[in-house]
Amino acid sequence: MRVDGREADQLRNITIETNYVKHPEGSVLISMGDTKVICTATVEERVPPFLRGQGKGWITAEYAMLPRATEQRNIRESSKGKVSGRTMEIQRLIGRALRSIIDLNKIGERTVWIDCDVIQADGGTRTAAITGAFVALALAMDKTMKKGKVKEWPIQDFLAAVSVGVDTKKGVLLDLCYVEDAAAEVDMNVVMTGNHQFVELQGTGEEATFSRARLNELLDRAEIGIDSLIAKQRDVLGEIADRIK
Amino acid sequence: MRVDGREADQLRNITIETNYVKHPEGSVLISMGDTKVICTATVEERVPPFLRGQGKGWITAEYAMLPRATEQRNIRESSKGKVSGRTMEIQRLIGRALRSIIDLNKIGERTVWIDCDVIQADGGTRTAAITGAFVALALAMDKTMKKGKVKEWPIQDFLAAVSVGVDTKKGVLLDLCYVEDAAAEVDMNVVMTGNHQFVELQGTGEEATFSRARLNELLDRAEIGIDSLIAKQRDVLGEIADRIK
Amino acid sequence: MRVDGREADQLRNITIETNYVKHPEGSVLISMGDTKVICTATVEERVPPFLRGQGKGWITAEYAMLPRATEQRNIRESSKGKVSGRTMEIQRLIGRALRSIIDLNKIGERTVWIDCDVIQADGGTRTAAITGAFVALALAMDKTMKKGKVKEWPIQDFLAAVSVGVDTKKGVLLDLCYVEDAAAEVDMNVVMTGNHQFVELQGTGEEATFSRARLNELLDRAEIGIDSLIAKQRDVLGEIADRIK
Amino acid sequence: MRVDGREADQLRNITIETNYVKHPEGSVLISMGDTKVICTATVEERVPPFLRGQGKGWITAEYAMLPRATEQRNIRESSKGKVSGRTMEIQRLIGRALRSIIDLNKIGERTVWIDCDVIQADGGTRTAAITGAFVALALAMDKTMKKGKVKEWPIQDFLAAVSVGVDTKKGVLLDLCYVEDAAAEVDMNVVMTGNHQFVELQGTGEEATFSRARLNELLDRAEIGIDSLIAKQRDVLGEIADRIK
Amino acid sequence: MRVDGREADQLRNITIETNYVKHPEGSVLISMGDTKVICTATVEERVPPFLRGQGKGWITAEYAMLPRATEQRNIRESSKGKVSGRTMEIQRLIGRALRSIIDLNKIGERTVWIDCDVIQADGGTRTAAITGAFVALALAMDKTMKKGKVKEWPIQDFLAAVSVGVDTKKGVLLDLCYVEDAAAEVDMNVVMTGNHQFVELQGTGEEATFSRARLNELLDRAEIGIDSLIAKQRDVLGEIADRIK
Amino acid sequence: MRVDGREADQLRNITIETNYVKHPEGSVLISMGDTKVICTATVEERVPPFLRGQGKGWITAEYAMLPRATEQRNIRESSKGKVSGRTMEIQRLIGRALRSIIDLNKIGERTVWIDCDVIQADGGTRTAAITGAFVALALAMDKTMKKGKVKEWPIQDFLAAVSVGVDTKKGVLLDLCYVEDAAAEVDMNVVMTGNHQFVELQGTGEEATFSRARLNELLDRAEIGIDSLIAKQRDVLGEIADRIK
Repeated sequence: MRVDGREADQLRNITIETNYVKHPEGSVLISMGDTKVICTATVEERVPPFLRGQGKGWITAEYAMLPRATEQRNIRESSKGKVSGRTMEIQRLIGRALRSIIDLNKIGERTVWIDCDVIQADGGTRTAAITGAFVALALAMDKTMKKGKVKEWPIQDFLAAVSVGVDTKKGVLLDLCYVEDAAAEVDMNVVMTGNHQFVELQGTGEEATFSRARLNELLDRAEIGIDSLIAKQRDVLGEIADRIK
Repeated sequence: MRVDGREADQLRNITIETNYVKHPEGSVLISMGDTKVICTATVEERVPPFLRGQGKGWITAEYAMLPRATEQRNIRESSKGKVSGRTMEIQRLIGRALRSIIDLNKIGERTVWIDCDVIQADGGTRTAAITGAFVALALAMDKTMKKGKVKEWPIQDFLAAVSVGVDTKKGVLLDLCYVEDAAAEVDMNVVMTGNHQFVELQGTGEEATFSRARLNELLDRAEIGIDSLIAKQRDVLGEIADRIK
Repeated sequence: MRVDGREADQLRNITIETNYVKHPEGSVLISMGDTKVICTATVEERVPPFLRGQGKGWITAEYAMLPRATEQRNIRESSKGKVSGRTMEIQRLIGRALRSIIDLNKIGERTVWIDCDVIQADGGTRTAAITGAFVALALAMDKTMKKGKVKEWPIQDFLAAVSVGVDTKKGVLLDLCYVEDAAAEVDMNVVMTGNHQFVELQGTGEEATFSRARLNELLDRAEIGIDSLIAKQRDVLGEIADRIK
Repeated sequence: MRVDGREADQLRNITIETNYVKHPEGSVLISMGDTKVICTATVEERVPPFLRGQGKGWITAEYAMLPRATEQRNIRESSKGKVSGRTMEIQRLIGRALRSIIDLNKIGERTVWIDCDVIQADGGTRTAAITGAFVALALAMDKTMKKGKVKEWPIQDFLAAVSVGVDTKKGVLLDLCYVEDAAAEVDMNVVMTGNHQFVELQGTGEEATFSRARLNELLDRAEIGIDSLIAKQRDVLGEIADRIK
Repeated sequence: MRVDGREADQLRNITIETNYVKHPEGSVLISMGDTKVICTATVEERVPPFLRGQGKGWITAEYAMLPRATEQRNIRESSKGKVSGRTMEIQRLIGRALRSIIDLNKIGERTVWIDCDVIQADGGTRTAAITGAFVALALAMDKTMKKGKVKEWPIQDFLAAVSVGVDTKKGVLLDLCYVEDAAAEVDMNVVMTGNHQFVELQGTGEEATFSRARLNELLDRAEIGIDSLIAKQRDVLGEIADRIK
Repeated sequence: MRVDGREADQLRNITIETNYVKHPEGSVLISMGDTKVICTATVEERVPPFLRGQGKGWITAEYAMLPRATEQRNIRESSKGKVSGRTMEIQRLIGRALRSIIDLNKIGERTVWIDCDVIQADGGTRTAAITGAFVALALAMDKTMKKGKVKEWPIQDFLAAVSVGVDTKKGVLLDLCYVEDAAAEVDMNVVMTGNHQFVELQGTGEEATFSRARLNELLDRAEIGIDSLIAKQRDVLGEIADRIK
């Protein structure tokens, strides 16, 4: 039995509240248990210098935590004057993941800024951010098409992310909360499409190692989680989901 | 008639949701119309160097906006690597204001960190932050007393803040929304106690000036707003409010 | 009797030495008692990006202290690699104040950089900076008109600033020196035009509060100070003063 | 046939020159084809604050490129004043990887600083850095034991890293050079022990995705590469290798 | 005939106003022609970490220019967030020069902070800064001895600095003003003691070179300038000068 | 007898390995005893803003040390977020020196970036960097001429640098190693052309002073060293050397 009473292959409760903030083209508040992230998608009418004049768009992501999203207050990165390695790693991951399921040629010379701000953290903030950001992106693309700026639907598949890990006693666990994550000897984040294709796979032995057999168990469990998350995305997106395939 | 149908001396709808985030000692989500701010109060068991060994506490505040709290996306201060002058001004104001209604000797060698994060902005974010932060502070003080760390109730009076301004055609307006604020020729923020004492008064002619008669009209209207805000604070604090006077 | 023998409503000795530095378009050394500030006005033939192409000018200000302007040596902000919140607040105040009494359309697409560098500090550095910067600005406008760049006189009124405060025993005091400022329970800076219109009003209870009656006393005393300061400005500006009204 | 004539499962030429720099406790120059990295290990007699007093050590890594290690000159991170996200990701990876095969309790309250500086880059710099850093670490541990500071041999297994990728036409390739890496649709870095246990697994579809079957092919090929790299490490370490298992 | 009418071996007018600022232990305003520098010496009762516990003191220097000390406004280094290479070079030079003529053991565990702030620049700011800083240092040492903190007079010799240069047509010139400096093909700064010993010698061919014969001419002329500068220092220091030798 | 057995006027062993790195237009690994520096020259097809449109080129230099080039590990400047004063001084010196022996008009609107990275340090890193950078620059100019971009050979003379110093007991020494440098009471760097013209002369009494007679001894010995260094440069440059004069 897990610390919060779940089965080993059971996700936490998920809610995705769409249009949570009024200004952005797309926005959600995603909750996975006590982890809560505001994800917004902003469409900007220009691209970074390296893409100018190619008729192609770009997606970039930023990630942050409110200082008291965590048990101990964490110092603002704006006060420290620099962004931590952990933050950079996460925002690069979110951007790469979203770029993999969209046809950047179809969005034209536009940048979509994805902002993921963790309001409350209880493990799995980066995977919740990706899962929520996908919905915000889909909402923003819908709005941009309705404005006539994007002509053809650009999103090619669903995208969700989940963590899996190995607990010394309980074996492979799906969707780790903070306490489980801190104790895990292996920690893996899996980003997958609706079609069960990998987009990113990041597995780390935390001062430990893992075998190929263990890897296969972890991936089996991750697929279960991804399916549930995409079902939830499909549900909140309603008609928009039908265009994704 | 104002842009959103209010009377000149009418506040926007206020809601204050207490304990909005689970980790902090005190937290609220305050909404004033479409302006929404998460305010948290964190109690840390130490003080800045200049206060060490004096048996006295400190309150400090930080303020930030999510990038897409605003109509146009604003660049994160962590990405820019520095905090803007506007942010610094606001967080210094919030800290000073809260320190004025608390007996810092009674909280012992502790720092209360106030974090105000604007989720959605529609004018008056700094005044909403102060009004919400006061409630978060009161909740945190209550919790810290219950833990036995603070022996005597330290908060001496209520504290709220409101904006007033001058519109060229409509005259003096209470609690400006963003559209009104952008058009105002005079902009004033008033921070006041429950006892109608000033804590801070900041009035600016925006490339304009104002007479002493106008100042008096502005202050009259501000007092009306402060009274409503404090009534709301009293309401959400319940029993805790009785200790404040 | 005050610490330096003045009456409650008496300013310190003021001197304003014009053209103190040879390179800038306008410059002064202003002394208010032992507070000494070099104020320079630099006319640059371009405007910030947000104003380009509008035929309108801009005024911006920077403020700093020499490291040993103060009793204790203060660390240079260039060494710290960032500008403090206090500095930002002051330079934003100076810029806003000067923009309120000038017709920015009349100066054309030019930026006036105001630099206020405190050589020696004894309280009231920001108000001395504003009072001195006004004179430097007027000198620079005169020079720029003589060069034929500005066609019509742009400055519409005089502008000066003074501090007032409340001492627990001595009541309301005008133009606080450092010792008085450190002891004051209320501290207010008033920026006013020659016409007795407010430009900025910033009053702070320093871990204290103040009533509306007290506010009125403070403003009465500030007006006395402003009148003397403007008389001094008029005096040193000579013929230029006649164009200001 | 690959761009440089190799077979799909063939590594580039590897050389590891030990004691390349005279000051550090351990150092190598590793070359994998045209990729050349200087790896040094520095033993410092203290640990970061979070470990003090636990009798346990730490390993931390830094990574950089000389400006002209690359085809186009890259701007120094010291000139930019900040470390890029890519650099942070790599140095966090190197540190984590090395910590997984060492018993940190056995090195006592010491920090080993691993510095990986790329002299010439032609793809696979991060994997070459890990493979080389392992040797530098082993040399440093040997030296530290000989000085009598570390009592028991702390390194528990070999550690090497290699890249694998998918080329649209040529399928799965081992040890990608720069040209191959730029063209690959999937890019994976595998860090493994001598015992074929995973330490890190980072696979990315570069604006693409990959199936589980493809993942298995990639991992098969990576294992071949790891075996050759560890054989090389064993060779250059001589007697020291015998202590590793 | 030089641009300002001087002879080739003639200094500009020098004035040194002592105790120019009230707070520092020592201060001067030095003018060499139109170059004006405020030099202050601050005595701090501690030393940098590398000197703690050795009973020895330290001297360190900082140098800056007001933004409009120059013909074109220069951007504040605090705004840029970093100190330029030129500034660092100059402040390291000033510190080194002053440390050469003082017995650091005699000042005890104290740091003397030398601040040189250029109010108006017309060439030779670094040499004026050294010449002025020496006087500020002597004043501060006198004051510190009178307080009983320093027991034995620590300054062993006079110290002054002057520039010399080569003009294509006019040959070797002493004490270059800005116009001369900008045109010079060789630029040399000489820091010397009262005893005609070199402390620093920095000669640069500005996209040019110079022979050993030319070097000797430059040094001859520099000695003439040093003698006059030290005579002036002796004059303003009065009785204090007698203790220097 | 010196610490490493050399005569007072004897250089350490010099080797200059050309084309050490494959990407840059010119590169060398220079060793002077145990001091080893990689010097690269990169030709960029544009100039800094202040030179645009003048048909003239520029040379700029950067210098760094690997963290463990030194006996004690030195913290990376990229981690500190700023470049030290020492580094700035050295890179400015290298750039100035190289600009003095080249006709910048002949290289057209191009910038040559010189990067000097110290792999191993044992005194004299800045002088080795200049001596090596000259060769890298010559190689890059040769390559750029062969590409037809530069029409006329731009380098007008050889350039080398060497240190000389005064040891209390052993007198004037040529080419100081680290141990000698740390003990020297006078330290001088001399940058000279093949024609025995000075380009830079930087002499410092390290908390000491030196006479003019001593200066002459130092310069005599430096000339001996420069001659040997230029002979070495001539040797490794082969045919290219013939074009230099």
